[in-house]
Amino acid sequence: MENFRYQNTTEVVFGKGQTALLPQLLKEYAPANPKILLTYGGGSIKSNGAYDQIKTALAGFDLLEFGGIEPNPQYSTLMKAVDIVKAEGVNFLLAAGGGSTLDGTKFIAAAAKTDSADPWDTILEKQTPVTDAVPLADVITLPATGSETNGFSVISKKEETKKLAFWSKAVFPKFSIIDPSFTFTLPERQTANGIADTFVHVVEQYVTHPQDCPLQDRQAEAILLALVNTAPRVFANPNDYQARANIFWMATQALNGWLNVGTVQCWAIHAIGHELTAQVGVDHGRSLALVLPGMWRQQRKEKGEKIAQLGRRVFGISGDNQDEVIDKTIARTISFFQSLGIHATRQRYGVSDAVISAVAEMIGSRGVKIGDRANIGKQEIIEILNLCD
Amino acid sequence: MENFRYQNTTEVVFGKGQTALLPQLLKEYAPANPKILLTYGGGSIKSNGAYDQIKTALAGFDLLEFGGIEPNPQYSTLMKAVDIVKAEGVNFLLAAGGGSTLDGTKFIAAAAKTDSADPWDTILEKQTPVTDAVPLADVITLPATGSETNGFSVISKKEETKKLAFWSKAVFPKFSIIDPSFTFTLPERQTANGIADTFVHVVEQYVTHPQDCPLQDRQAEAILLALVNTAPRVFANPNDYQARANIFWMATQALNGWLNVGTVQCWAIHAIGHELTAQVGVDHGRSLALVLPGMWRQQRKEKGEKIAQLGRRVFGISGDNQDEVIDKTIARTISFFQSLGIHATRQRYGVSDAVISAVAEMIGSRGVKIGDRANIGKQEIIEILNLCD
Repeated sequence: MENFRYQNTTEVVFGKGQTALLPQLLKEYAPANPKILLTYGGGSIKSNGAYDQIKTALAGFDLLEFGGIEPNPQYSTLMKAVDIVKAEGVNFLLAAGGGSTLDGTKFIAAAAKTDSADPWDTILEKQTPVTDAVPLADVITLPATGSETNGFSVISKKEETKKLAFWSKAVFPKFSIIDPSFTFTLPERQTANGIADTFVHVVEQYVTHPQDCPLQDRQAEAILLALVNTAPRVFANPNDYQARANIFWMATQALNGWLNVGTVQCWAIHAIGHELTAQVGVDHGRSLALVLPGMWRQQRKEKGEKIAQLGRRVFGISGDNQDEVIDKTIARTISFFQSLGIHATRQRYGVSDAVISAVAEMIGSRGVKIGDRANIGKQEIIEILNLCD
Repeated sequence: MENFRYQNTTEVVFGKGQTALLPQLLKEYAPANPKILLTYGGGSIKSNGAYDQIKTALAGFDLLEFGGIEPNPQYSTLMKAVDIVKAEGVNFLLAAGGGSTLDGTKFIAAAAKTDSADPWDTILEKQTPVTDAVPLADVITLPATGSETNGFSVISKKEETKKLAFWSKAVFPKFSIIDPSFTFTLPERQTANGIADTFVHVVEQYVTHPQDCPLQDRQAEAILLALVNTAPRVFANPNDYQARANIFWMATQALNGWLNVGTVQCWAIHAIGHELTAQVGVDHGRSLALVLPGMWRQQRKEKGEKIAQLGRRVFGISGDNQDEVIDKTIARTISFFQSLGIHATRQRYGVSDAVISAVAEMIGSRGVKIGDRANIGKQEIIEILNLCD
């Protein structure tokens, strides 16, 4: 284990009906008599019950609304919200919806407190540390990103075909209300995408070159084992509260930071996946399911030991021939994605040779190689994508 | 999963030499120009390097010292420290040592801010909620209690043969410095006790009547698997930094609260273990190793499914006969404790029939049955202890 510092101050408020606690949570975490901006996306919160419960809980509060944050939150949209925050003196942000809405709201929170005329440039391109932000919280309604208990935010700028991320302690939610009942009405596609996202979040923090972190390994395998064994339940019965609750908790735990303390992380699958989404619009979770096999095939030497370990400990694959175990693990992982209804191929998502070149060029142009060994550059990305199904 | 709320604001500062960060950590978490009381125990910190590193880091700070906190921190000793805190205007506490020192310091922090003339009575006997405490932090040097990232404190009053616990959000450390190098010089006995304590912390949150919490199950098994597989390394080479680091992290993670969110917990092994320590002075970790087999034997019906699951998933025990799997799991767990050098028998620890009666009487007299089913009373405790080796 390497030296590290870790802190996560977000209060998790989990379970049925917990939205009713909003007034007391705001009393604890928001300024007195807060001026709140409720942010949301396309309106799923108006059909899954979240919107009604929030409005009921916040009757009597000074509440503005900003809807329309996209599944890949767009910079131009978010800056409109920043204008409202500044003009109206909003001093607390409440994001209701999935990770896109929450990520977008984290960016609004940061951009509203910066003097920069171009927050895209300073925060996302230049990665200038964000040290101040409007306090925020969320009612998260989609298990996928784990954004509810971390300081990450991923923002898109389609005018430039870009999708970039930032992290800051200042944008950890003060509290996150996680009511799994809001997920009963999720389209199967989103349920599947969220599970794939959770799986690959774990992989990015675990399938790396070998480490001496036995607990973190076992904790990663714990999430994968629970996920693989529970996923069938949510498809068999979308209204199974316990199944939904367990799946949500796995998504949250996959990216709250515990898995990667003291160890190395890859994140190359996500880097490439983000570019694919920017280029061809493929859903985030599906982009990861496409890239993972290509990554494991190309990175077989560096990552082989961990891939085989995953295969043995998560999928129960046995055998002394390491190469065979690795092959079987890759196949078994693809089967898992397929069991979610995700059949990820380059053809299906329109990932042509031209797209592959564009993705490799975009990442390569940043001048920094990616992956846990920092050894994946333009050439490797082309190889990886050509090894995808 | 049941509804829950969870928050853990402690900043973990892990690794070699991290004590050097004390000045900047105090700048962030302590009052300006703090008046600090450094608390410690018998002096192990003067031989493991922690004291020197702390004094070096805090040169120039207003620092008082209070040593002598016992392995089972005594109320009377702690109240002397409370007097000093009040008389000297101490406004920050820094505990250096094991969980005993830290638990004792948490109590000092709470007692110093209460108007009660008898903090033992109000905080520990009556469990009056503690809502205010002197801010505190720690340099924890013994992997065992997990006190470094929770709000628990266990205090003893030998005049009354009592050992009681309290919990409060107000006594979570602001930060915890965890440098595994300080554990190289631990006597084998303490290393073993700490590992046993970690194991049983997990058991208390996992070996209960059946639940539908697949992730928490797997996370508990993750700690047990990692612990069982790593323990031999610290005995083989006490100066193996990575082994020490991994073992420390397991102890911390076992009781930071993540394992028990949304599920049930037992804590009856600890309740009985505490009484045994109060009665006959047996080390805490050893008291748990003694009680666990008796608990599992007496609670076979309620806990059998989880005992067998532990056996299968942690110890690799196979077979369709559930009773046999349970028996083998109990035997295998005893073997694990023995591999640490802990050979726990009633005879060895002086647990006579009279002691058993006293323990059962003490717990029974509180009028509340213990265990995850709240069904373990005086009679059951006698049965449990008579089923111990």
